[in-house]
Amino acid sequence: MEKAFFEGYEIGCAATTRGKVADYIPELAKSDPKAFGLCMLDATGEPLTFGEADTRFSIQSICKVIILAAALKLRGFDETFSHVMMEPSGDAFNSILKLDTRSNLPFNPMINAGAIETASLLLPELSFEDMLDYARMLCLDPTISLNEAVYNSEAQTGYRNRAIAYLLKSKGVMSADPERTLNLYFRLCSLAVSARSLAGLGLVLANDGVHPFNGKTLIAPEHVRTIQSIMFTCGMYDYSGKYSVKVGVPSKSGVGGGIVCAAKGPMGIGLYGPALDAFGNSSGAVKAMVHISQALGLHVFSY
Amino acid sequence: MEKAFFEGYEIGCAATTRGKVADYIPELAKSDPKAFGLCMLDATGEPLTFGEADTRFSIQSICKVIILAAALKLRGFDETFSHVMMEPSGDAFNSILKLDTRSNLPFNPMINAGAIETASLLLPELSFEDMLDYARMLCLDPTISLNEAVYNSEAQTGYRNRAIAYLLKSKGVMSADPERTLNLYFRLCSLAVSARSLAGLGLVLANDGVHPFNGKTLIAPEHVRTIQSIMFTCGMYDYSGKYSVKVGVPSKSGVGGGIVCAAKGPMGIGLYGPALDAFGNSSGAVKAMVHISQALGLHVFSY
Amino acid sequence: MEKAFFEGYEIGCAATTRGKVADYIPELAKSDPKAFGLCMLDATGEPLTFGEADTRFSIQSICKVIILAAALKLRGFDETFSHVMMEPSGDAFNSILKLDTRSNLPFNPMINAGAIETASLLLPELSFEDMLDYARMLCLDPTISLNEAVYNSEAQTGYRNRAIAYLLKSKGVMSADPERTLNLYFRLCSLAVSARSLAGLGLVLANDGVHPFNGKTLIAPEHVRTIQSIMFTCGMYDYSGKYSVKVGVPSKSGVGGGIVCAAKGPMGIGLYGPALDAFGNSSGAVKAMVHISQALGLHVFSY
Amino acid sequence: MEKAFFEGYEIGCAATTRGKVADYIPELAKSDPKAFGLCMLDATGEPLTFGEADTRFSIQSICKVIILAAALKLRGFDETFSHVMMEPSGDAFNSILKLDTRSNLPFNPMINAGAIETASLLLPELSFEDMLDYARMLCLDPTISLNEAVYNSEAQTGYRNRAIAYLLKSKGVMSADPERTLNLYFRLCSLAVSARSLAGLGLVLANDGVHPFNGKTLIAPEHVRTIQSIMFTCGMYDYSGKYSVKVGVPSKSGVGGGIVCAAKGPMGIGLYGPALDAFGNSSGAVKAMVHISQALGLHVFSY
Repeated sequence: MEKAFFEGYEIGCAATTRGKVADYIPELAKSDPKAFGLCMLDATGEPLTFGEADTRFSIQSICKVIILAAALKLRGFDETFSHVMMEPSGDAFNSILKLDTRSNLPFNPMINAGAIETASLLLPELSFEDMLDYARMLCLDPTISLNEAVYNSEAQTGYRNRAIAYLLKSKGVMSADPERTLNLYFRLCSLAVSARSLAGLGLVLANDGVHPFNGKTLIAPEHVRTIQSIMFTCGMYDYSGKYSVKVGVPSKSGVGGGIVCAAKGPMGIGLYGPALDAFGNSSGAVKAMVHISQALGLHVFSY
Repeated sequence: MEKAFFEGYEIGCAATTRGKVADYIPELAKSDPKAFGLCMLDATGEPLTFGEADTRFSIQSICKVIILAAALKLRGFDETFSHVMMEPSGDAFNSILKLDTRSNLPFNPMINAGAIETASLLLPELSFEDMLDYARMLCLDPTISLNEAVYNSEAQTGYRNRAIAYLLKSKGVMSADPERTLNLYFRLCSLAVSARSLAGLGLVLANDGVHPFNGKTLIAPEHVRTIQSIMFTCGMYDYSGKYSVKVGVPSKSGVGGGIVCAAKGPMGIGLYGPALDAFGNSSGAVKAMVHISQALGLHVFSY
Repeated sequence: MEKAFFEGYEIGCAATTRGKVADYIPELAKSDPKAFGLCMLDATGEPLTFGEADTRFSIQSICKVIILAAALKLRGFDETFSHVMMEPSGDAFNSILKLDTRSNLPFNPMINAGAIETASLLLPELSFEDMLDYARMLCLDPTISLNEAVYNSEAQTGYRNRAIAYLLKSKGVMSADPERTLNLYFRLCSLAVSARSLAGLGLVLANDGVHPFNGKTLIAPEHVRTIQSIMFTCGMYDYSGKYSVKVGVPSKSGVGGGIVCAAKGPMGIGLYGPALDAFGNSSGAVKAMVHISQALGLHVFSY
Repeated sequence: MEKAFFEGYEIGCAATTRGKVADYIPELAKSDPKAFGLCMLDATGEPLTFGEADTRFSIQSICKVIILAAALKLRGFDETFSHVMMEPSGDAFNSILKLDTRSNLPFNPMINAGAIETASLLLPELSFEDMLDYARMLCLDPTISLNEAVYNSEAQTGYRNRAIAYLLKSKGVMSADPERTLNLYFRLCSLAVSARSLAGLGLVLANDGVHPFNGKTLIAPEHVRTIQSIMFTCGMYDYSGKYSVKVGVPSKSGVGGGIVCAAKGPMGIGLYGPALDAFGNSSGAVKAMVHISQALGLHVFSY
C-alpha cells in the first residue's frame, strides 16, 4: 500500500508542472506551484506522509463539506434541503445561471451559491468560533486557524459571492443577513489546513462519521452518507463526472490546492498541490488519486 | 432479504397512485397505471419476483446503458468520450441548452443528446439486429423483441430527438447519418423488456460484467465501472443527485416505467411501474428502492 | 388633435382595470389602480391635460433616460458605450442571464444592469443633487423632488439590484463603488414626477434636445438621436418590439406607472396609470398611446 | 445627394478589406471579397448606381422580409403573430436558446427560427413559384431567379436549420411539414438578386408599400409599418441596436453580402459587399450606410 501512495506522490509531483496557481486572490498567487504533498490516515493512527504534508494552505471550497455537515446537524436533512438541492449542476462552481432559469434554490451545497445558502443556515446559532472548533474536531487537527490575510483578501474582492448572496436574498431563499453570511463564509474559506488535516477529515467521513480513535460519533451516519454522495456527484467542480469514473472516491477540492478523499478501508487521504488544472482542481492531486485508486482498488464500483 | 423486497413491492404498489403514465407516445399511454412488479436476481440464479415481473414494456431510456456498453466495446473509452462527455448536466433529459452554450459535446450518454450521439458511434458496424442480440445477452433474456407499435409511434413523433440529431450533425460532432442514427435509436428505445430482463442486466453490471452463470465476460470490467459511475451520477434524470443520496445504487430509469439497478451482492434488481413521478421516473419503483436499499444496506456509501 | 388625446384618455381609463399595481415595493402598492392621467406638451407651451396629470408618482425606470443623457454628456458616446452595449436583450429587465453567458457588458442602458452601470459612470463627478437639478431641467419641472419613503423602500429591499451591481463589479466592468452607485441609482428611481413632468422630458427629446421655449441646447442632438433609438428598441421592457410596431414612438416606461413619449411634432406626451400589464408597462398608458399614435399618425414609419 | 452616395461607395469599398466572405456554404465562399456596389432608387425612377450594382448574389436572410410580407398578406397580422413574436432577441440569428427557455414561439421573423416558422405559414397555399413571382414584384425586378448551386448547398448542409424546424414541430408551433417548409425556405434564401433589386424592394417599403411607378398597392400600409418596425429593431443581427443608433434606417442584411434599406424620401437603397463583419453584416455596406445616413439626414430620429 505504501508503494501505491509513493508512486501517486511521484506522479503528483510530476503533474504539478501542468497546472497554474490560482491568482484571483493575491494571497493564493503566492503559493509555490511546485509544492506537493499527501497524507493518508487510517484506523492505525499512523499517518503515511509524502512531501509537503504539513504545509498550511487555505481550505477554500473544501469548507463546503464542513458547512454541510454543520447544517445537517443543526437544521436536519429536511430543513437543509428546503434551502438547497442536491443535484449536480453541470455549470461552473460560481455560476448563477440556473438560479435564474431553473430553480430558485441552488443546485447543491458544493457550488458557491449552495454553500453560501447553507452557511446562512448556521446563523445566528453558530459563530465563526463555533465553526472553527467544529472544523478542528472533524479534521482531527486542533491547530487549524484563520489565515487573516486570505480572509481580508476574500472579503475585499469577493464581489461575485456578494452578488450570489444578494441574489439568494432577493429570491427569498436566504433568511439570514447576506453580509453576516458572507463574513462567516469568507472566514471558513480562509481556514489554514494541511494535507494532514484533510486526511483526518477524510478518515472521519470514511469511518461513517465516527472518530477513528475514541469511537465518538462526530457526524450522524445518515448525514455522512448524504455528504459522501454529494461529494461523489458534485465534489470536483466540472470534472466531477469524469473523476467519479476515473477515481470513484468521494472527494472535494478547493482552489487553495487541497483535495480531501474519503476512501474504503476506511482511509482518509489529504492532498496538497496549489497548481490547478483547467477545472480548478489540483492537477497533481487528481493525477495522484487516479493512480492510487487504481492501484489499491478504491473505486466504489470495484466491489 | 425476501422480506425487504416484499415490503418494497408493497410500498411501490401503494406509490403507483402518486404517478402518471407517460402520454407523449400513444402506445405508452395505454399502460395500466396500477401495474407494478419487481424482480431480484443474484448469483443463486433463483429470481425473486413480485407482481408484474414478466409484463413487457418498452425499455426506453434504459437502452442508453446498452448503447454505452456497445460503444465502449466497439470504439473504446477514448474514442467514445471524444464524442460525449461524462458530466451530469443538471438539465432536463431532452435539453439542448448546454449544447448551444457550454459545449458542442453532449454532457453525458444518459441524456438524449448523448445517447443519440453514442448510438451514432455504433454505425455502420452494428445493425439493429446485432444490437438486439447484444441486448438479449446483457439482459440474460433471449426473448426480448422489438415492439413495432412503439417504434412506429416514436419514429413518427420524435421531432425533438430529430432536432437533437441534426443539431449534433450541424456541430460536426456526429459523423453518421442522422436519419440512420435515429432509426437505430428509436428501435432500441422500443425493445420490449420485463422487470426480469432488467434484473438480468443489473446482475451482469453488478457482477463486474461477468455472466453470473457461465463466467464469460460480457462487458470489460473497466467499462462496467465507467457505466456504473455514469448511472450513479446521471441515471435518474433530474432526480439523480437525490436518488444517489437516498438509494445510492447505480440505476437507470426509462419513461416506459422500468428501472434497472446494479447493487452490491452482487444483485440485479429490475422494477416496473409505468406511473411516473414529476421527474419521469417510476414513482413506485423509486419508493420501493428507497426502502430496499435502506433495509438491506445497499447504499454504496454504507461500507 | 385634442379629440385624439381625449379618446386616448378614455381608452386608457377603461384599460386600467386590466392591470395591477406593482407591489414589490410597499410604497408602490399604495397607488390607486384606477388613477389615470395624461399630458401633451408642444411648442405652443400650452399643455393639454386629462385626468391625473399632476399626481406625483415615482419615476422608476424612466430615470434611465436621464441617467443615459447625463452619462453621454459627462463621458461622451465612446466611453459610455465601452461600459454598456446598445442592443435589445430579449430578456427581462432585471435579468442577469446574458451577463453570464453572452457578454460582460450589460446589453443596453434601459435594463437594470445597464442603467446601474451607466449610473456608476456619473460618479464621482456628479452628486444626487446635481442629478436632481438635471432631471428638473430636462423635465421642465423645477418642483421634482425625492420621495424619501420610496427611496428607503428601494434601498432596503433592492437585493437583486445589489446583486447586479456586485456582479458588474466582479467582472471589472464597474469602476465605481457599488454601494455608492446603488445609492445614487435608488434615489434617481425615487424621483417624484407627474405626467406633466414627463411631457416636458418628452418634448425636450422630441425637440432634438433643445429647450422648447428658450432655445437652449439641453442635450446634444447626436445624443438625443442615440437616446431615442435606444428608447425605440429597448424602452418598453419585453414589449418593446410590439410597442414599436403598434405605437412606433420612442418611449420609456417605469413600474411607477409612468410613460414618457417623444413624438413627431415635436410633441412630448406624459402618461400615468399605476395599474401595470404583464410586461410591467402601464396598461392604460399603452392602450392610450396605441390609439393616439394611430389617430394622429405618430408612428415613425408613417412618413 | 449623388455626392453622399459616391462617398459612401468609396468608404464601403475601402471597408471591404475589414471583412471576410462567408464560408459555411461553399457557394458563398466563391464570392470576390473586394466586390462592392450600391444602388439608390427613388420616385424619379432613375437609379443611381456605383460599382457592382448588377452583380447577382444570393439574397439569404433578406428573403425574411419577403416571407414576412407574404405571410401577413396570406394569414393576416393576428394569425402570423400567433406563430412568431416581434421582439428583438439579443441572441445569435441561429440561436435556439430562447425557444427552450423563454418561449415556444420564435422571438421575431428576422431570426432563422422565426423565418422558418413564418415560411411554414405560406404552405400549402403558396408554392415556390408563387413566392418567386412575389419576390420579383416586390423587388421591381422580373429577372430574379433561383441559384440552384446555392440551393443545393443549403439543402445538403443546412443541419442547424433542420434542427430548428424539427424543434418548432416538436413544440406544436409548426403545423406544416418540416421538410416541405425547409425546401421552400432554402429556395427563398437562394434567390439571385442584385443591389439594384434590393433598391427596388427598399423603395416599395419606403413608399408605404405602393409601387412607385404604377401606384398599385403591393403591401398593405399597416403591414409595411410592421415590417419596417421589425427591420429597425431586429434586421441587422446582433448589431441591430447599434445600427439603429448609427444609421437609423429600417434595413435587413444577408450573409450573401446584401443589405436593403427603406429610407425617407422615399428612397430605396440596395448594397452589395460579400466581405462580412463579425456580426454577419456586409462590412462595406454598413460603413457606407453610416456615412450616407449622416450626410443626408436619413436617421428616422432626425426629424
